[in-house]
Amino acid sequence: MFDCVAVVGATGAVGREFISLLETRGFKARAVRLLASRRSAGQRIRLNGDELVVEELTADSFKGVDLAFFSAGGGVSKEFAPVAARAGCVVVDNSSAFRMDPATPLIVPEVNPDDTRQHQGILANPNCSTIIMVVPVWPLHRANPIKRIIASTYQAASGAGQAVMDELADQTRDVLAGKPAAPRLLPFQYAFNLFSHNSAIGENGYNVEEMKMIHETHKMFHDDAIRIAATCVRVPVMRAHSEALNLEFTNPITPDEVRAILADAPGVKVVDQREPQHFPMPIEASGQDDVLVGRIREDLSGPAGHSITMFIAGDQLRKGAALNGIQIAELL
Amino acid sequence: MFDCVAVVGATGAVGREFISLLETRGFKARAVRLLASRRSAGQRIRLNGDELVVEELTADSFKGVDLAFFSAGGGVSKEFAPVAARAGCVVVDNSSAFRMDPATPLIVPEVNPDDTRQHQGILANPNCSTIIMVVPVWPLHRANPIKRIIASTYQAASGAGQAVMDELADQTRDVLAGKPAAPRLLPFQYAFNLFSHNSAIGENGYNVEEMKMIHETHKMFHDDAIRIAATCVRVPVMRAHSEALNLEFTNPITPDEVRAILADAPGVKVVDQREPQHFPMPIEASGQDDVLVGRIREDLSGPAGHSITMFIAGDQLRKGAALNGIQIAELL
Repeated sequence: MFDCVAVVGATGAVGREFISLLETRGFKARAVRLLASRRSAGQRIRLNGDELVVEELTADSFKGVDLAFFSAGGGVSKEFAPVAARAGCVVVDNSSAFRMDPATPLIVPEVNPDDTRQHQGILANPNCSTIIMVVPVWPLHRANPIKRIIASTYQAASGAGQAVMDELADQTRDVLAGKPAAPRLLPFQYAFNLFSHNSAIGENGYNVEEMKMIHETHKMFHDDAIRIAATCVRVPVMRAHSEALNLEFTNPITPDEVRAILADAPGVKVVDQREPQHFPMPIEASGQDDVLVGRIREDLSGPAGHSITMFIAGDQLRKGAALNGIQIAELL
Repeated sequence: MFDCVAVVGATGAVGREFISLLETRGFKARAVRLLASRRSAGQRIRLNGDELVVEELTADSFKGVDLAFFSAGGGVSKEFAPVAARAGCVVVDNSSAFRMDPATPLIVPEVNPDDTRQHQGILANPNCSTIIMVVPVWPLHRANPIKRIIASTYQAASGAGQAVMDELADQTRDVLAGKPAAPRLLPFQYAFNLFSHNSAIGENGYNVEEMKMIHETHKMFHDDAIRIAATCVRVPVMRAHSEALNLEFTNPITPDEVRAILADAPGVKVVDQREPQHFPMPIEASGQDDVLVGRIREDLSGPAGHSITMFIAGDQLRKGAALNGIQIAELL
C-alpha cells in the first residue's frame, strides 16, 4: 500500500490511462495527486468517485509522495524525476529520458522483473513499440534463443498523444468533406495516408523510434548479440500499434511450437484463426491488457525450420505505456 | 497503331484508370470500345472529347478488336480472355487468372520485356503489390543478385476496388459521427483500423496475396532461388500501396550504391531526404507513374555489408494495374 501516488502529466492521453487503471486495477494508495503544467492546472478528473483537481507541477510537488508515474515528456522527466527521487519518491518514468541510463532499470514485468531490485529511485518504462514487441518475443527467446528480429510497425495516432488523435479525426473530417488536410502537430497529412515515424533520424538512417526498439530490447534481454532492424511507420489508426515481426531462432522451431509457447505466456493472447481470418487488429487490441499475436507461420525467406513470422497488435496507451508502468509499481 | 482497343471492366476503379491513361498517354487507337457487365452497360464515359457508351460484354464483343485490357476479375477473364484471343485479339489481363499459366507471359516492362515475345494471345499483368515491389528490386537484383526479400505491405483500399474505397469513406464518416462502423464488402471495420489481407489462406498460413508476391516474382525474375516472405496488410489509406522491404544481397553493397542504382532505374523515383524527413507516402505516390523509394539504409539485422532495408510506395491503380497494362501493350 502506497501512502500517496502522483500522476505527472495527468491530463495527457497516457496520464488519463494511468488514472483509469489506478481505479480499475484497485491500485492501493491512500491518496492520489494529479500534476500537470500550469496550463492544465485546475482541471477536474474523477477517480474512485472523487473529483480530483489537477495541481501545477513544481519542485515542491513530491513532499509526502512515495510513488510517481511520469508521462509528461522527456524534458519534464529530466527536470523533475531526480527532484522527486531525492524527495524519497519512487519514479516510474514513461519518457525516454532515463531508459538507457545504466543506473535506471528498464522494465517490462513479463521480461525482466528482477531488474527492478537495482533501482535508485527511478525506473523506466520502455518505448511503446518496444514493449508490444518484447512481450511475445521474450518467452520465445527464452525457449529458443533468437538471433535476428525484423520489425515493421503500423503505429497509431495515440503514440503521439491526445492532440494528434484529435488531429487525425479533424483532418479526416476535412478530407471527407473535400477540404484540404491541415497538418498541425505532424509534418504531413495523416488522414488516409501514412508516413515514416517523425522522430529524428541519425547518421545510419534509422529514426530514434527504430533505435529505441533495438537498444531497449538489448538492455532488457541482457543480450546485445540479437541483431534487430526496425522500420517504424505511422498509420491512420486511432489507438493500438501493430507490428509485422520476422524472427530467426538458434534451434529448429515450428509455428505450432510458437503457438504453444505463446498460449502459456503472460500478457499474450493468441488470435490466430485462419478460417474466419481472425487475426490481431488494432480495434480489438484497444482497451485490452494483452498483446494479440497471430499470423504465426514459417518465414519462408529465412533459414528453413528456424524462422517464424507473425503479426501482433497491442494497446499503445495501455500495455505500451500506462499499464506497464502500473505493473512495474505493482512489482515494487 | 491499333485498330480497335477494348477495355473490359470499364466502369471499375482500374478500368477507369485504363481509360484515363489511354487519353493522357496519347495511346494510338482508331477506336475504343468500353465493355462491362449488363448492370453497367449504358453508362457514358468521356474519352478524348467523345462520349462513349459502355456496352455489355458478350462472346461477340471482340470482333474487330485487336487489343483488350481486362480488369473485371478472374472469373470474367477465365471466360472471355480465351474467347477474345481466339478472335485474334491480344489480351492484357489484369486478373490473376492466367498469371502462373506457363503459356502466359507475366510482364513488368521494366523487368522482363522480352518475355512478351512468347505470348499466345494473352499477357498477364502481375498483382499490384508484386509490381510495386519488383520495379525497384529488379535493377538492384541485376547489379547484385538478391538472395532474400522480406516484404511487409501497407495496402490501400483501391486494391479492393472502387466499392471498398467508398466503404472506407462511409465507415470513416460513421465512426467520426460516433456511429458503429458497418462493414459491407470487407469482413472487418476498416475505418481507423487495419487487418490482414482478406484473401484466402493456404496450408502454410500465407494468404493468396502473399503467395502471389512470391510466385510472380520468381516467374518474372526467372529465378526460383530467391527466398521471399511477405506479410500483406490492409491499412485505411485510400490509394497507393506502401511496402517495407528487407533485402539480402550476394555481394557487398552500401546504401549509397543502392541509391545510385535506383537514381538511374526506369519507373523509380528516389524520395529519401532525411533532413525534412521526406520519404515515400501514399498521398504523394497517388496519381504518379513512378514507384517512390526511400528510407534506404543498411539492414542492421542482416549479414553485415550485404543487407539493405527501404520503404516504397506506388500507385496501386496506376503502376500497380492500369499503367503497367498500357506499358505492356506499348511494348507489343
